[in-house]
Amino acid sequence: MDMLWNGWGDPAKAAPLPDTATALLRDLLGVTPRPAGALALPDLRPPATTAAPAALRALADAVGGAEHVRTDAESRIRHTRGKSTPDLLRIRAGDTGDVPQAVVLPASHEDVLAVLRACAAHGLAVVPFGGGTSVVGGLAPQRRDFVALDLRRMNALLDLDPVSRTAVLQPGLRAPEAEALLAARGFTLGHFPQSFEWATVGGFAAARSSGQASAGYGRFDEMVLGLTLATPEGTLETGRAPRSAAGPDLRQLVLGSEGAFGVITSVTVRIRPLPEHRVYEGWRFASFEEGAAALRRLAQDGPPPTVLRLSDETETLVGLAQPDAIGAAAARGDTGCLAVTGYEGARRDTGPRRERAAAVLRAAGGTHLGAEPGERWARGRYSAPYLRDALLDAGAFAETLETAAFWSRVPALYDSVRTALTDTLTRAGTPPLVMCHISHVYENGASLYFTVVSARGEDPVAHWTPAKHAANEAVLAAGGTISHHHGVGTDHRDWYVREAGPLGIGALRAVKRRLDPDGLLNPGVLLPAD
Amino acid sequence: MDMLWNGWGDPAKAAPLPDTATALLRDLLGVTPRPAGALALPDLRPPATTAAPAALRALADAVGGAEHVRTDAESRIRHTRGKSTPDLLRIRAGDTGDVPQAVVLPASHEDVLAVLRACAAHGLAVVPFGGGTSVVGGLAPQRRDFVALDLRRMNALLDLDPVSRTAVLQPGLRAPEAEALLAARGFTLGHFPQSFEWATVGGFAAARSSGQASAGYGRFDEMVLGLTLATPEGTLETGRAPRSAAGPDLRQLVLGSEGAFGVITSVTVRIRPLPEHRVYEGWRFASFEEGAAALRRLAQDGPPPTVLRLSDETETLVGLAQPDAIGAAAARGDTGCLAVTGYEGARRDTGPRRERAAAVLRAAGGTHLGAEPGERWARGRYSAPYLRDALLDAGAFAETLETAAFWSRVPALYDSVRTALTDTLTRAGTPPLVMCHISHVYENGASLYFTVVSARGEDPVAHWTPAKHAANEAVLAAGGTISHHHGVGTDHRDWYVREAGPLGIGALRAVKRRLDPDGLLNPGVLLPAD
Repeated sequence: MDMLWNGWGDPAKAAPLPDTATALLRDLLGVTPRPAGALALPDLRPPATTAAPAALRALADAVGGAEHVRTDAESRIRHTRGKSTPDLLRIRAGDTGDVPQAVVLPASHEDVLAVLRACAAHGLAVVPFGGGTSVVGGLAPQRRDFVALDLRRMNALLDLDPVSRTAVLQPGLRAPEAEALLAARGFTLGHFPQSFEWATVGGFAAARSSGQASAGYGRFDEMVLGLTLATPEGTLETGRAPRSAAGPDLRQLVLGSEGAFGVITSVTVRIRPLPEHRVYEGWRFASFEEGAAALRRLAQDGPPPTVLRLSDETETLVGLAQPDAIGAAAARGDTGCLAVTGYEGARRDTGPRRERAAAVLRAAGGTHLGAEPGERWARGRYSAPYLRDALLDAGAFAETLETAAFWSRVPALYDSVRTALTDTLTRAGTPPLVMCHISHVYENGASLYFTVVSARGEDPVAHWTPAKHAANEAVLAAGGTISHHHGVGTDHRDWYVREAGPLGIGALRAVKRRLDPDGLLNPGVLLPAD
Repeated sequence: MDMLWNGWGDPAKAAPLPDTATALLRDLLGVTPRPAGALALPDLRPPATTAAPAALRALADAVGGAEHVRTDAESRIRHTRGKSTPDLLRIRAGDTGDVPQAVVLPASHEDVLAVLRACAAHGLAVVPFGGGTSVVGGLAPQRRDFVALDLRRMNALLDLDPVSRTAVLQPGLRAPEAEALLAARGFTLGHFPQSFEWATVGGFAAARSSGQASAGYGRFDEMVLGLTLATPEGTLETGRAPRSAAGPDLRQLVLGSEGAFGVITSVTVRIRPLPEHRVYEGWRFASFEEGAAALRRLAQDGPPPTVLRLSDETETLVGLAQPDAIGAAAARGDTGCLAVTGYEGARRDTGPRRERAAAVLRAAGGTHLGAEPGERWARGRYSAPYLRDALLDAGAFAETLETAAFWSRVPALYDSVRTALTDTLTRAGTPPLVMCHISHVYENGASLYFTVVSARGEDPVAHWTPAKHAANEAVLAAGGTISHHHGVGTDHRDWYVREAGPLGIGALRAVKRRLDPDGLLNPGVLLPAD
């Protein structure tokens, strides 16, 4: 199934906001319904492809037939940009400015190498395309003459080694497909980001994804044991052993390279036995500070739950309450902060682990809320992007951003990003609701994930841009990283360049020039174009 | 205190082999005592420094005074090569061919940058020098006109953040100094490689060290959260957050760079509370295969001990037995294999963890041997290099090498490296004793550490070289990595080049050219010199 072209996910799952929510948006944020005026896909008329017939023939030769090279309007529109709110607003407005000249579907590593040769010969840039779920402009290169390299035909489980507990996956496998193939053999990857239902294994690796069960299963970059990269200069194979002292870890140079160094054509991952047992629960803390201290305690001294997250007061209020109860709870000022803990594994393990973690949370001030809030979170864990569509449909603006920092910097980072967003949007006449949660914890720090909802300006992309830039500045000033798991893309690039510094960027550009001397790969994504 | 110039460690701790061991070496391996003929340090006469007076003045200016630039013979000899057996044999034979032209002692990051500028201006190469414990030729560059950059003056704890549990350490801190500074604040790093007493924090990072407690504390590269690198092109700072999706992980590009990209001038590490409690125990398994399966079980399904190691039958025999008991036990064929488990942490944690691990080991066929074998291992954990000196003094040859692989490849890797060593040395007329242990385990694989003892040939370095090369070939052919924790240096470089492949090496050379365009830094170490 194809993702909704102008929103998230399965079109059948789209649902409008309930009237109570619409009323609340109006009363709280001044959101006024907009005339629908929604364009249908056939209304969009991208310019005809500029790819020369000879180039298209070469691409068809590379991938085994003209049926795997698509230049129709729908295919090209479906491979335009990603799923950030500005991306959705642009495509809803009929803006096809970033449309690829063709969509090419290789079936193998050799096909990808051949595509890269054909593109080099015909002067076309290449944007690797997995699930199309980038929210940082990772699919909008700074050149118009590019093809989207859709990896969906490369969706096999190539190998599974139950002794070493490793699997070799092709990059176009969507996460649910990968999990189904592994589950048939009794294993799981354990990677469950919010984009789970649509995102691909290759995309997880290219963008250093982190899933909702990262406390138990680790980040995706921690699961990767080896990668094959197809580059214009040939093949790079990494990962002969789980750990090595043989030079720098080249896997960590490919992870996070966002298609700028090459196309990831296989990923060797660590797999784990399917958990026998899953349990999710809710806890209440009096404040975000108290809850964060409790999470830190578990992250540092254990035992680690598999899922561990904490909403701030505002997110708790919005998430917990029936819409009409929000005002009352806010008036009482007693919602506190909701934490969700989850335990997955063998029954003999999850029980004791849960008991010991509960003792830590209780000692840190937590109140056990039972299973319901946890189960509710688990049911809705992939639904936030659908809610965003409904908010946009209702005339509101909604977007997310995220960062991470060492624990001692987390409080100031939280304050300064919230302040930056609130001040900028308030000055622009659209005071926002800013919510935040911690969803990834480490011994030494944590992530912060912000959700912003406000009324939208006349030109909502232009309206949002200063707020996003202010948040980026706040992140850098408070010592956070410009992205904990969304990646750099084009949206974060200028701040990433400052974070990595001239020598860091210089080293990466040197690598890019070696692997992609003609600059074909994702020009302007991750690194500034030459 | 300075390390013994022609051997390991504290000269006061050197001790000859007992007569029974000498007899055993003679009977088992044909080792014949050699006439001592040992040179004293003053007997060695390195050629006078070729560094120009202007260069030495520039270096003195860079580091705050001529007293921090040494050209005397003893200083230069003490910074010649490292501590591999060939290194010891060469220096014992009076070979000062790899002597640096000067030893330079910077006190700060700025000093290091100034030294790099001075060396660039005067055409000198630079070899960063920490504890001098490399066993892979990491201190012997392929140029004669180099200075050793001894980092011992940079030995401060710069910062400690108890909330984030991070510390910023200077690179010249020896591990015991670092542990003492951290212990005064209630923390430990938990990094205890065999070189612990002499090696430095900067060296651990540069060479991707792994310590004996890696099952509990992780490898050194997993402890590093940030690095500062001084390069001829300026400063590279990495590590704003514990984890990030902002591009490739540049920390992992610096870790393992072995001084070829720059000089590590500070390391931000994860620290942990000092353990309340430490307990070590011994277990017996009927075979190496059975023991390895038990270790794998713990590594994959937990609970992980802090220390987890397993000797093969030969190493168990040599380690367990009084010398005169070896023959008897071997005749009975019933030594089995010794595993050592260690648990460090809070008392409330180590007890239950030990009980659960014991149940796993027992179910996997293990017999509990009580504390004595574990305590004995712990007492002797840093003494093997002293034993090597005694073996060399007694006329034997002794060396170690190590690798790692995914679990399913471990048995074949074990067999083929043993066979390569045994066959090569037997053909050369010196049948060896080859021992092996697993000392680092991961969910997906393990390390193998081999110790070889034999009679030595007339020219022992030339005698050993074919065996070492055969072992390297066996490692690559069986799918292992050329080094799990010793590093690449010059000894493994040609095999590393094959392991990383042309694009992997090409990418690293591109980074080196960007950071070190004149090729000053450790030329020929890690990467082939231009």
